[in-house]
Amino acid sequence: MSQDLAAALDIGGTKIAGALVDARGRLLVRAQRPTPAGDGPAVMAAVAEVLRELGAAGEWERAAVLGIGSAGPVDASAGTVSPVNIPGWRDFPLLAEVRRVAGELPTTLVGDAVAMAAAEHWRGAARGHDNALCMVVSTGVGGGLILDGRLRPGPTGNAGHIGHISVDLDGDPCPCGSRGCVERLASGPSIARHALAQGWRPAPGGDTSAAAVAAAAATGDPVALASFDRAARALAAGIAAAATLVELDLAVVGGGVAGAGEVLFAPLRAHLASYAALSFAAPVRAVPARLGADAGLIGAASAAAEAHGLWAAPGRA
Amino acid sequence: MSQDLAAALDIGGTKIAGALVDARGRLLVRAQRPTPAGDGPAVMAAVAEVLRELGAAGEWERAAVLGIGSAGPVDASAGTVSPVNIPGWRDFPLLAEVRRVAGELPTTLVGDAVAMAAAEHWRGAARGHDNALCMVVSTGVGGGLILDGRLRPGPTGNAGHIGHISVDLDGDPCPCGSRGCVERLASGPSIARHALAQGWRPAPGGDTSAAAVAAAAATGDPVALASFDRAARALAAGIAAAATLVELDLAVVGGGVAGAGEVLFAPLRAHLASYAALSFAAPVRAVPARLGADAGLIGAASAAAEAHGLWAAPGRA
Repeated sequence: MSQDLAAALDIGGTKIAGALVDARGRLLVRAQRPTPAGDGPAVMAAVAEVLRELGAAGEWERAAVLGIGSAGPVDASAGTVSPVNIPGWRDFPLLAEVRRVAGELPTTLVGDAVAMAAAEHWRGAARGHDNALCMVVSTGVGGGLILDGRLRPGPTGNAGHIGHISVDLDGDPCPCGSRGCVERLASGPSIARHALAQGWRPAPGGDTSAAAVAAAAATGDPVALASFDRAARALAAGIAAAATLVELDLAVVGGGVAGAGEVLFAPLRAHLASYAALSFAAPVRAVPARLGADAGLIGAASAAAEAHGLWAAPGRA
Repeated sequence: MSQDLAAALDIGGTKIAGALVDARGRLLVRAQRPTPAGDGPAVMAAVAEVLRELGAAGEWERAAVLGIGSAGPVDASAGTVSPVNIPGWRDFPLLAEVRRVAGELPTTLVGDAVAMAAAEHWRGAARGHDNALCMVVSTGVGGGLILDGRLRPGPTGNAGHIGHISVDLDGDPCPCGSRGCVERLASGPSIARHALAQGWRPAPGGDTSAAAVAAAAATGDPVALASFDRAARALAAGIAAAATLVELDLAVVGGGVAGAGEVLFAPLRAHLASYAALSFAAPVRAVPARLGADAGLIGAASAAAEAHGLWAAPGRA
């Protein structure tokens, strides 16, 4: 039997998903569990159930590699994870624990946003782009990097973490310990908090999410528009910094906040033209992500396939 | 005769230097001319003189590659340069013009700070470090990147340009078109300007350079110390951004401002601990550059050797 599939795990604070993925990015077999709110062993037990469910499928015999995308921070060099939203796991030896269940498949661990970048490069908006930053703008802000045509996760699997670069060195303290981080200005909760502080009031029903602010902005509410403009400016400064540091031609923006569409992308393009000023940085464009909820699984599969030489370039076209 | 040398050119606003470099980084033959203040053809004539002087040496027959480090911005993909401080050259086809003089040696063009990064990685402070940012902090602020053990110049040869990332998105306009760039806060002229604006007065003789501010800071002058602290904070925010984006273990800082020693490095280390907060970014350290005025030539040679496979890894030890 040919070893032509990649097994994939996508581990987040809400759900733990698994799949067997083929060379065209199709999910042949899926398994999923909610992430237990309990302690660390309970979370690992859910991961093991997902793996056993995949293992029970006939296609498991075809799995050549295993990719794991996990909420971060991760430490790919140590094989451990310490997800902010899974309190029971701190320096949790995920790689070793997964191997006890799944066996000795060649395995790759990356952060969830790095997995998303791999997916957008393989099957989404960054396809055909050799140098791209792919971002998730949601409750938090994360990202991953494609450099010289390949995923570049960095030694610990966290590279591209645009959410925690400072674009305002005198700005508000960030829970990470730094100040003025992109996430403090551009995450969904930051947009909503800023709008409320500036006097925006939700419609009856009281939805105070960033999506509600986006809906208000779409009808011309000036405070809601200003809140998205502020977020867009921080994202633009961050993308421009990345383009100036590593030379990018594309920034792919996904996550819930990107769902605001032109309410976000119109000011983002305008500010990017201002902050990405040098000749070699100026060409960078910002576009919406194309893949949806499966990006984490597709990307984990892609990262493992790329790291271990499965699916040579022609098969990945 | 073995083809075991790299020819190198270092083109700046003050001088045009050339050398033949061996596999241990020694400069066997040198040539140099002042950069003419005149028009573009005059500058190219000086480059041609340097190349002809190198060509007249017997060792020229051993040159296998040619590396060019030029004041930027450069465009390695087009083979052109537009150095800010050589006004006669705008989109100047340097690669083609050099080939008319030097012949068809395999040639690599990179920005001058990228060349400096290659040199520090090969023979200087970044030796043995697989992920490093090397910076020049002087009249301007530039840099280059080592990623996964190799120079990463980027598609146009400008990657690592830390001087023009914004660390203060509401900050002063920068001549590049952006705002709050690291260079606007940390270059030598910025340090001196800030000190004078805050009431620092030079010693009799009137030296108002950053070096004079550094000398005052070393004797405890509070305004001079505050000016270096402000520059160090901007550099720290920039280095932290780079470490968060690409995962770095080292930042090498050279250039005239780095000559201030602990006046710069003490606050730089303190601020770096604050801005590089995430677990995978926190290990980054800032250290002084080791190579001096020859870094540009050594680095241009190294960049060309690496790009064209001269001097395999053992010979580069």
